[in-house]
Amino acid sequence: MLKGKGRFTKHIGLPPGSIIYMGQKPEIDPEISYFYYDENNYREVEKYSLEDLEKLDLSTGMHWINIDGIHAEEVIEKIGKKFNFHQLVMEDIVHTGQRPKFEEFDDCFFLIIKMLYNSTRGENIEEEQVSIIFGENYVISFQEKPGDVFDAIRKRIRDTKYRIRRNGADYLAYSLLDAIIDNYYIILESLGDNVELLENEVFSDSNSATIEKIYKMKRKIIQLRKSIWPLREVVSSLTRTENVLLKENNIRFFSDLYDHVIMLIDTIESFRDMVSGLLDIYLSSVSNKMNEVMKVLTIIATIFIPLTFIAGVYGMNFHYMPELSWRWAYFTVLGVMLIVAIVMLIFFKRRKWL
Amino acid sequence: MLKGKGRFTKHIGLPPGSIIYMGQKPEIDPEISYFYYDENNYREVEKYSLEDLEKLDLSTGMHWINIDGIHAEEVIEKIGKKFNFHQLVMEDIVHTGQRPKFEEFDDCFFLIIKMLYNSTRGENIEEEQVSIIFGENYVISFQEKPGDVFDAIRKRIRDTKYRIRRNGADYLAYSLLDAIIDNYYIILESLGDNVELLENEVFSDSNSATIEKIYKMKRKIIQLRKSIWPLREVVSSLTRTENVLLKENNIRFFSDLYDHVIMLIDTIESFRDMVSGLLDIYLSSVSNKMNEVMKVLTIIATIFIPLTFIAGVYGMNFHYMPELSWRWAYFTVLGVMLIVAIVMLIFFKRRKWL
Amino acid sequence: MLKGKGRFTKHIGLPPGSIIYMGQKPEIDPEISYFYYDENNYREVEKYSLEDLEKLDLSTGMHWINIDGIHAEEVIEKIGKKFNFHQLVMEDIVHTGQRPKFEEFDDCFFLIIKMLYNSTRGENIEEEQVSIIFGENYVISFQEKPGDVFDAIRKRIRDTKYRIRRNGADYLAYSLLDAIIDNYYIILESLGDNVELLENEVFSDSNSATIEKIYKMKRKIIQLRKSIWPLREVVSSLTRTENVLLKENNIRFFSDLYDHVIMLIDTIESFRDMVSGLLDIYLSSVSNKMNEVMKVLTIIATIFIPLTFIAGVYGMNFHYMPELSWRWAYFTVLGVMLIVAIVMLIFFKRRKWL
Amino acid sequence: MLKGKGRFTKHIGLPPGSIIYMGQKPEIDPEISYFYYDENNYREVEKYSLEDLEKLDLSTGMHWINIDGIHAEEVIEKIGKKFNFHQLVMEDIVHTGQRPKFEEFDDCFFLIIKMLYNSTRGENIEEEQVSIIFGENYVISFQEKPGDVFDAIRKRIRDTKYRIRRNGADYLAYSLLDAIIDNYYIILESLGDNVELLENEVFSDSNSATIEKIYKMKRKIIQLRKSIWPLREVVSSLTRTENVLLKENNIRFFSDLYDHVIMLIDTIESFRDMVSGLLDIYLSSVSNKMNEVMKVLTIIATIFIPLTFIAGVYGMNFHYMPELSWRWAYFTVLGVMLIVAIVMLIFFKRRKWL
Amino acid sequence: MLKGKGRFTKHIGLPPGSIIYMGQKPEIDPEISYFYYDENNYREVEKYSLEDLEKLDLSTGMHWINIDGIHAEEVIEKIGKKFNFHQLVMEDIVHTGQRPKFEEFDDCFFLIIKMLYNSTRGENIEEEQVSIIFGENYVISFQEKPGDVFDAIRKRIRDTKYRIRRNGADYLAYSLLDAIIDNYYIILESLGDNVELLENEVFSDSNSATIEKIYKMKRKIIQLRKSIWPLREVVSSLTRTENVLLKENNIRFFSDLYDHVIMLIDTIESFRDMVSGLLDIYLSSVSNKMNEVMKVLTIIATIFIPLTFIAGVYGMNFHYMPELSWRWAYFTVLGVMLIVAIVMLIFFKRRKWL
Repeated sequence: MLKGKGRFTKHIGLPPGSIIYMGQKPEIDPEISYFYYDENNYREVEKYSLEDLEKLDLSTGMHWINIDGIHAEEVIEKIGKKFNFHQLVMEDIVHTGQRPKFEEFDDCFFLIIKMLYNSTRGENIEEEQVSIIFGENYVISFQEKPGDVFDAIRKRIRDTKYRIRRNGADYLAYSLLDAIIDNYYIILESLGDNVELLENEVFSDSNSATIEKIYKMKRKIIQLRKSIWPLREVVSSLTRTENVLLKENNIRFFSDLYDHVIMLIDTIESFRDMVSGLLDIYLSSVSNKMNEVMKVLTIIATIFIPLTFIAGVYGMNFHYMPELSWRWAYFTVLGVMLIVAIVMLIFFKRRKWL
Repeated sequence: MLKGKGRFTKHIGLPPGSIIYMGQKPEIDPEISYFYYDENNYREVEKYSLEDLEKLDLSTGMHWINIDGIHAEEVIEKIGKKFNFHQLVMEDIVHTGQRPKFEEFDDCFFLIIKMLYNSTRGENIEEEQVSIIFGENYVISFQEKPGDVFDAIRKRIRDTKYRIRRNGADYLAYSLLDAIIDNYYIILESLGDNVELLENEVFSDSNSATIEKIYKMKRKIIQLRKSIWPLREVVSSLTRTENVLLKENNIRFFSDLYDHVIMLIDTIESFRDMVSGLLDIYLSSVSNKMNEVMKVLTIIATIFIPLTFIAGVYGMNFHYMPELSWRWAYFTVLGVMLIVAIVMLIFFKRRKWL
Repeated sequence: MLKGKGRFTKHIGLPPGSIIYMGQKPEIDPEISYFYYDENNYREVEKYSLEDLEKLDLSTGMHWINIDGIHAEEVIEKIGKKFNFHQLVMEDIVHTGQRPKFEEFDDCFFLIIKMLYNSTRGENIEEEQVSIIFGENYVISFQEKPGDVFDAIRKRIRDTKYRIRRNGADYLAYSLLDAIIDNYYIILESLGDNVELLENEVFSDSNSATIEKIYKMKRKIIQLRKSIWPLREVVSSLTRTENVLLKENNIRFFSDLYDHVIMLIDTIESFRDMVSGLLDIYLSSVSNKMNEVMKVLTIIATIFIPLTFIAGVYGMNFHYMPELSWRWAYFTVLGVMLIVAIVMLIFFKRRKWL
Repeated sequence: MLKGKGRFTKHIGLPPGSIIYMGQKPEIDPEISYFYYDENNYREVEKYSLEDLEKLDLSTGMHWINIDGIHAEEVIEKIGKKFNFHQLVMEDIVHTGQRPKFEEFDDCFFLIIKMLYNSTRGENIEEEQVSIIFGENYVISFQEKPGDVFDAIRKRIRDTKYRIRRNGADYLAYSLLDAIIDNYYIILESLGDNVELLENEVFSDSNSATIEKIYKMKRKIIQLRKSIWPLREVVSSLTRTENVLLKENNIRFFSDLYDHVIMLIDTIESFRDMVSGLLDIYLSSVSNKMNEVMKVLTIIATIFIPLTFIAGVYGMNFHYMPELSWRWAYFTVLGVMLIVAIVMLIFFKRRKWL
Repeated sequence: MLKGKGRFTKHIGLPPGSIIYMGQKPEIDPEISYFYYDENNYREVEKYSLEDLEKLDLSTGMHWINIDGIHAEEVIEKIGKKFNFHQLVMEDIVHTGQRPKFEEFDDCFFLIIKMLYNSTRGENIEEEQVSIIFGENYVISFQEKPGDVFDAIRKRIRDTKYRIRRNGADYLAYSLLDAIIDNYYIILESLGDNVELLENEVFSDSNSATIEKIYKMKRKIIQLRKSIWPLREVVSSLTRTENVLLKENNIRFFSDLYDHVIMLIDTIESFRDMVSGLLDIYLSSVSNKMNEVMKVLTIIATIFIPLTFIAGVYGMNFHYMPELSWRWAYFTVLGVMLIVAIVMLIFFKRRKWL
């Protein structure tokens, strides 16, 4: 749950504001991509260089800079200097263990949010930290590694007909957030499917591995809650800001986002309730099974133990046992045994054990 | 619980404000019905056409437009244009997975609420999303399919004597809400009946299917809570609005509605408590049953195992066993066995196992 | 828990403000009693007629009208007209499934509260809805049926020496509320006694009926919480009102009432904690009992099964079993059996099973 | 939990403000003690008479009147008249079932708080209601019976060197509160010791009495919470008052008190968590014990039942059983039995049951 | 949990503001270390004497005084007089059982916080109370014993290049807090590792010691919560203060600290959820094991008890049992026994018990 162990330990002792990546550095070089657009034009650079970035002129149009790979500290540092961001902001971008958060500055907003993926093996939910800074006419997004959920947005930017081309940085930032949050629904949906599978398993075919699945489901939900709950505050702060960077008529989009986040929370909370319900069912099914086992044992033992006793009595070697020499004694005893067995069976039938 | 699976997944990647119906499109065409009324006159059109709608003159009287079937995107879109609604509002109407919500605009109010039905098989609670927009002198209601709980309201409109004819759009909107919320009581009542049935079952005749019923009851309650809790905020926002669209003297009706919602919440919460109590009872009844089973086994085994041992001893074939030749040995042993059995029975009596 | 089933269902479809009694109409006619008093005089009419009521002059003194039986809709309606109450107020009075609530009007306050009784069979808690409306110089109280907790107040009104004669409608309303809330203590006290009885039962003599008692206790507590929790808000609203109908120097009485309500809530919550604790104890006592049963079975079986085996060995009919012909073999085997039994007993003693 | 049963029932029907002691009246007469002090002088009267009290001149110095025994209603009433306290205040002092509370008047503060003692048998926590009223230059404290935790304060008053002599009524009231709250730590400490003893018992030596101890511990904690939680509000109100009776520079003392109360709450809450944890442990230990019992039974039964069967086979009396006459048959069968037993033991070893 | 028992008991009866160390006094003398620095110079004194402290000139530069050992009351008292601190502050520093807290004075801030260590045996978490007072240009830190987490800060002070040399007392105080809170991550990380070990143990190899480990884990988490939750308020108060002692541009550092504290709380809460989940798993694993044991017993008993009965029948000594003399009777019976056993095994196979 404390993903990326060792991270915090290494960090300790550093002065605040140190831009030092704490995770395992991946081997891929960080990549910068760049979008310029206004209502009429757009320009796209897939491999943007740091030099271009330093010379970038922000006076007109909208600029979207996306950095894949936050382990290259010098890149982060240069961007921080170019845009004059606070030292602690740059530190937060690089430290991947952050909680989703929102910070407001005079000339820009800073957001941290988690991008979630179902891991390829389907066992875990993988997190990737995405940081978004947006100001008057620029949006800068930082991701841990290549591959994201923003392709639909890129397509829309390339096309004049979409609203995004006629809106500012706040709308682009909203679109990025929207894309990330929409992606949560995929996670929740597959989780929902798994909850249903688990339900079926618990009711029809539970075994000792079921409990482990329930626990893992619970862990996933704990992890998701840690990512989703803080989002509420993040998005709600955005809707309530009075900073002019967020245009009046765009605030409704963020309100809409807020509704989505609340729906996510509702859904995750009902999953939580359901999984905790499943645990109860599982425990009761274990007890029910034991009950079944015990009943079988009891029925068999209760029928045959008295019969065995009777047989034992007539297996005694006393010299004077008058019954032994009676003509029909053997069959009488067999008959008695049969009656005893039938009586027992009726008793069990009455108790609904059969 | 995430009803209408696949819905969210398809949605992802679309620009915000896209009016695209996500559920499975039903085969029936959407139907528009129209009511015009003022204090003295009323007019009712059962199959209202889109053309009429576009030419509709809103300058006098009250107008209620009801749309059954939100899967026809172009209808929704035309209405949106005619009344000049926000793009996101139209999107919300079409997306059926919404959470109940309330939005206030300068010239209209927008509400989403769930209409609940007991499914025909009685197993589930079916949800239908109802969106209501009302302004100065119009109310527009959107439903997923034909069939609703508004017939009593239609009757009252047709009759001059009712207050509804002398009140504006806010009162009509209140009436619609009131009809939907009143309908919740039917759901809760049948749920309450089921809780009582379940109580009886748990106490007198629980079996391994009972736990599944308890779990399904719990699921239903989770689903209802998701629909009912957000209503509190929706209705409370309506009572607190300062918008003149809601006339001062009608606010008390919404307060009354608020009280009803709180009562619904109270009731659903006490059902929740009771169902969680039932689970405890069920689990303890399973344990009690096992106890019964074990007692029977123990009583039988404890009485006959020692007796069988005694019989076994005198079944040994040692050449020198003096008792064997004694005259009354056999009957003495039988007597001893009887005494052992009686002692055991007394012991069990004392322990209250019998 | 949804007492008075069918009530809501019948109600549905009626226009708001319909004064229609929903419960089963009792056979007794509603009775109106009337008190007039000021500092020096008082007049009491036990059977007050509707005609007198209509001609009632409210210009001087204090007037207390008490109606027993709210099923006579026309009586309620006439009172509503006489005093000019809001339609919804009259509706709330007649609908007995209301939640305790408080409403403030310009010229009067409206309260709904539950009067609680232990049912005669002692199984349930019976609720009766009491509505109180008070204005400048009148208090009107509505009860479902005759018989109430107000006799002490009536006595005080008849006597000049009591403060009530020198105080206004707010003080009388306070006195009525105080009498009702004081009565809750009786309910809670008998509940407390039952909790203690249940405690003793669980610890010394629990059986399978105990769990049902615990569950019923829990249900009672759920019911009480539904009546008592909303009271907090009701009384707290009264202490915070700025309406001059509530005289400054009488507010402290309502504060005192508020303290009582909080005490009730404290008490009911600790009962809740205790009852949920009792359930745990009960479940553990079931397990402990099963443990006892199992121990007895195990001790008996573990001692005699090996012995029976030994006996079995020497009951075999092999022709060549040298021990059989030894002189002391039989007694040696008996001795070995004794030793095995003693060893087993020591083993159980060590494990503290004996 | 509803200590002093019958109390409420008797109270019902009395007019508000009735000064009538509801508990069982103790036989001891109430005692009044009196302290006068200023910076230079002090006077102490151990048995202060009501007459002196009525003639008391409050114009200079500090006056502390302590009443032991609140069952003498006339004493309480005279004090109330002398100092002109509100009727409801006097009622609250006499009614011992009060919740800790704080009330602010123009010229005085009124506090109710519980003094807690470990009962002599150590089973329960005994409560004593202490009421404190303080104004400009007097403090009046009411206790249920003689014996308190104020001796240290008395000593400090007798000595000029302590700050208390140079401070006013607010500081004395603070000192009294501080003494009472400090005393709570003793209760919590002995509770903490008991929790630790219980922990040891649960882990090493739990028996069926343990569960009762856990439940009683839980009850104690419920009782303590009822006394301690309301204190937070009481003390917090004192720190936030703007009444000049509380001197600016003494408020920090009440803040300090507030910190102590929060610490008490923290501690009691962690006890609560721990005790609920202990219950889980206890339940699992019961299950573990049953597991042990079952294992022993299963091992013995599983080894000997097959062996007994083998012995049984060769105890049959068929005329034609060829093995019976074989020379080494008996020893072969014994050997087979040994092998079966060993195989079983290995099987149990593998399953870690041994 | 009430660490340092006896502490509170001794304290009782003392006048407020008494500077008396309550723990067991360690044998080491308290040590004072001193740092002077400004942008250009710094001076460090490892063993600073009380006399120097009294003569200390605070007019220029930054002063950091660190006291290791708070049991020397006279040292604490002298510092209190030199800097003119409130009596209660000095008392709080010396009383080690404090809750983390924050107090604001006109000319200084006072903080109490816990430094946490994993105890050397790794069983417990050891707490050390650190008090920090900082004013315009001084920071005074009090620790219980030598050894701390501030060495990295000392290094940074010795080096001109770090920001700390150019910042005031608020930044130094922030750095101290940051160092302590960073250290919490180490605790949480080792806790996280232990949770994972426990997970593995519960799933693969749980035994009766596991439950004790789970309980101890739970206790640790309770202890940590008591230290960490109050921090939220402490740090949040610091970010919201309007005192000029905290420079505007340093507040963002405290906000960052606040984010860290929230992350700690998130993490500890998810540990709590996970550990409570583990307990459920453990309990179910105990039940599953018992199920396994019961199945083995039932299978063996159910197969052999009927067989033994059959053998018993033919071991009876009746004179007239025709089968005994049949030629193939013995083998037929053996065959029947085999068939019975096989039928039983098939039955168990069907029930998935094998």
